[in-house]
Amino acid sequence: MSDDEMHWSTAITEVKPNELRLRGYRLDELMGRISFAAGVYLALTGELPAPGVERLLDAMLLASIDHGATPPSALAARTTASTGAPLNAAVAAGVLSINRHHGGAIEDCMGVIQEALALAAEQSLSIAEAAAALVAAYRAQKKRMAGLGHRIHTDDPRTARLFALAAETGTAGDGVKMLQALAAAFAVASGRALPVNVDGAIAALLVDLGLPPALANAFFIMARVPGLVAHVYEEQTRERPMRRIHPSDHDYDGPPARDLPE
Amino acid sequence: MSDDEMHWSTAITEVKPNELRLRGYRLDELMGRISFAAGVYLALTGELPAPGVERLLDAMLLASIDHGATPPSALAARTTASTGAPLNAAVAAGVLSINRHHGGAIEDCMGVIQEALALAAEQSLSIAEAAAALVAAYRAQKKRMAGLGHRIHTDDPRTARLFALAAETGTAGDGVKMLQALAAAFAVASGRALPVNVDGAIAALLVDLGLPPALANAFFIMARVPGLVAHVYEEQTRERPMRRIHPSDHDYDGPPARDLPE
Amino acid sequence: MSDDEMHWSTAITEVKPNELRLRGYRLDELMGRISFAAGVYLALTGELPAPGVERLLDAMLLASIDHGATPPSALAARTTASTGAPLNAAVAAGVLSINRHHGGAIEDCMGVIQEALALAAEQSLSIAEAAAALVAAYRAQKKRMAGLGHRIHTDDPRTARLFALAAETGTAGDGVKMLQALAAAFAVASGRALPVNVDGAIAALLVDLGLPPALANAFFIMARVPGLVAHVYEEQTRERPMRRIHPSDHDYDGPPARDLPE
Amino acid sequence: MSDDEMHWSTAITEVKPNELRLRGYRLDELMGRISFAAGVYLALTGELPAPGVERLLDAMLLASIDHGATPPSALAARTTASTGAPLNAAVAAGVLSINRHHGGAIEDCMGVIQEALALAAEQSLSIAEAAAALVAAYRAQKKRMAGLGHRIHTDDPRTARLFALAAETGTAGDGVKMLQALAAAFAVASGRALPVNVDGAIAALLVDLGLPPALANAFFIMARVPGLVAHVYEEQTRERPMRRIHPSDHDYDGPPARDLPE
Repeated sequence: MSDDEMHWSTAITEVKPNELRLRGYRLDELMGRISFAAGVYLALTGELPAPGVERLLDAMLLASIDHGATPPSALAARTTASTGAPLNAAVAAGVLSINRHHGGAIEDCMGVIQEALALAAEQSLSIAEAAAALVAAYRAQKKRMAGLGHRIHTDDPRTARLFALAAETGTAGDGVKMLQALAAAFAVASGRALPVNVDGAIAALLVDLGLPPALANAFFIMARVPGLVAHVYEEQTRERPMRRIHPSDHDYDGPPARDLPE
Repeated sequence: MSDDEMHWSTAITEVKPNELRLRGYRLDELMGRISFAAGVYLALTGELPAPGVERLLDAMLLASIDHGATPPSALAARTTASTGAPLNAAVAAGVLSINRHHGGAIEDCMGVIQEALALAAEQSLSIAEAAAALVAAYRAQKKRMAGLGHRIHTDDPRTARLFALAAETGTAGDGVKMLQALAAAFAVASGRALPVNVDGAIAALLVDLGLPPALANAFFIMARVPGLVAHVYEEQTRERPMRRIHPSDHDYDGPPARDLPE
Repeated sequence: MSDDEMHWSTAITEVKPNELRLRGYRLDELMGRISFAAGVYLALTGELPAPGVERLLDAMLLASIDHGATPPSALAARTTASTGAPLNAAVAAGVLSINRHHGGAIEDCMGVIQEALALAAEQSLSIAEAAAALVAAYRAQKKRMAGLGHRIHTDDPRTARLFALAAETGTAGDGVKMLQALAAAFAVASGRALPVNVDGAIAALLVDLGLPPALANAFFIMARVPGLVAHVYEEQTRERPMRRIHPSDHDYDGPPARDLPE
Repeated sequence: MSDDEMHWSTAITEVKPNELRLRGYRLDELMGRISFAAGVYLALTGELPAPGVERLLDAMLLASIDHGATPPSALAARTTASTGAPLNAAVAAGVLSINRHHGGAIEDCMGVIQEALALAAEQSLSIAEAAAALVAAYRAQKKRMAGLGHRIHTDDPRTARLFALAAETGTAGDGVKMLQALAAAFAVASGRALPVNVDGAIAALLVDLGLPPALANAFFIMARVPGLVAHVYEEQTRERPMRRIHPSDHDYDGPPARDLPE
């Protein structure tokens, strides 16, 4: 292969001397004007978020920033850190643990919502009718429906907050409506109410924001990396090397419960 | 070792049914009130950023979100993606490439600034005097001074923007002053002006924000992960598997240069 | 979950004070009696290899130990090493690049061979008949047949050597026969002879050794890790940090071609 | 940078159509003639092992192939596997956990041995005298001496076996002698016998084989990767996803203790 045939192109960032443009916008002009979360959206989709959406994006990333020391990504990162790994290697081990069974519910739920929306479109069904049909189909095939229910939280406060912000910012669309219809249809069909969990809420919002399911896991990774950093740094500065890390026998001893300043 | 002796504590996140608190604050209350960048600061330091600092943090993370396809983290992530790796594994390969020689200048520069500030304190020198003394010492030992100069950018627009925002938000302190004094002293001593680069600017601001040098690389990682995600996704959706990836023979073909909407 | 419910078992290694047993055998008794390759087989399958197979296993691992600096696993490892990563992190980046499109042909080819053998069993066909039927089916579906053909090697000397050793040690069974029948059937059907490549040869032997396809990639990883180590060490000791690594414009300047000592 | 300036060379493997040479030797000629372990030595050092050393190399790699489910590399790999990661990503997480505090004793001990040998050479001391001097210096500085003592094994059978094989194959040299002298000097000085552990034995042999300390961790990684593969595969095939993995409350339920066949 000649070198000419190796030439390739990228549409993300243009680097010229003293001029850096992300998807066409000068990075120094973006700085101070948009939030990092809005920059994430720009990097991934190629466009700035619609007005009002920026705050929602910040909240979506914040929702998944950390979930304590029990998730396997935190344990893998801490286990690696405990052997003397540099911070980036320990964080990488955590990122390697974000997969189908950990974080993957967002992508699965996006798939369910998109399947239901496609059903509504193809068969000219209302959102409620499509939701009922899909719930019936899943129950007949004994398939689990991602995005509903949680091992610990019966009523995850993050879900309500995200849906409230989505309503406030005018972002909520058919994705959110469909997931709520699926939850309602599930409750009717099974006689058991399973609330929308935070993965489901994020999935519905990603659908309404137009992100592809292939980036769902990425969204969770970007949100969780700071939490992994905090765990690795705590392990490095607070614990002795090579300790045996119990996966659940730990408690919280940080700042006590406190309210936000006005 | 008995199970009792394995009990441990973490000060990051408290997880109770239907209640999640990051460093004491309810996550759902933070959502919509602070930016993700402010949440990163809270996760790492245990406290909310001082008023006005949030915008600076967003800008600092945004400054490093991507630097095109040439940096080794982007190339390692794309090379891994090209073999059919899932997105998280390709991003992890990129994170593994953020080390001393790539991203490490932030930590090195924080060390230089702290060394100069310590010198000023110990010997009751002014900032300018301490800077001149340290520059002389580095030159005598033929040591490179991190944070000054750049292979491509002679006047990085991100640096000016960060310092302007730091001034605006009242964040700039002795860290920024010392780095600027070091750059001035270097120019006098060497007869060659080397501007503060973006790594130096971030280093100075991290010093003024009170973050430890051990988290400098983490800051760069958190900022760059979205850029790595964008590269991996572009590789997965735009290129054929197992192509030979030229490290520099690529151009930009994304959205043309454009101004921010008013 | 109580701690009792967390109790679990492993069937790989028993560790007692001054006594270490791998799959029941004392490790110190194995040492000096079997090769490392035979130990790999014992670790993975739970049993010692049949007499005569040990030499074949050594040859199979040796066959994939390195393939120069062009494969993406070598490039990812070198790119990571070039940033100052410790050796294990650079090797890990290489391991992350061994996937479906790089090393994956072994697993794919094991699947093809097992599919053909199942076809023969279910429909009481001879090996030649089943091979012809499967080749026809693949051609009708325009599916590529893994294990045949190579970008560089038209007659890979490793294939002939592996098949000769398999014959010598009495290991060759229906797996090898079927792959050779598939290659022959392919040549007849397409009018184009595609030789069995080294991935195909290893796949056929793994089938005959009774290893599951889920371990095919693992076999390649175990074989290639020493090659990755050699590349990382060479990068660390011979090249300057942060160089731009051309994926193909490199040559070999090691020891000249030489014969094995008698 | 022009493409010409990017041209580079590698001394590991030469790839030509139908001809693959590792450090100058045809790979297909090596296959069946030398063990994989000998190939590892060739890949790393550039030369075939001296006659008789091959069996020792196989034993050295075998000695570290697995140490049960407690080491952090096994736990990190299993934790990652438990989230649904592909095998290579889980193995990579394990490799990332092989660092200074896990596996690192080999490199540390090589350093101690080399320091003692240098002391003997510089001050014209006997091995026993240099060992006594270094032990005294370490004790005065309260520095731990790597390679002696073990948390579980007071008399590691692998050590005796490795030293016996080294004697048998004529490989044992000043490295082994010095480590044994250091252990003897330590016992005299401290009144407490700490046996040479397996990391120490391997370190001494690597010194006598002429490998650099920078490859000590690599040697452990190459040896342990098959063990990590076995753990990941067992986790994938035997356990349910996302289980909480207790770091020590596990037992062995594999094949019962058995003798090697004659």
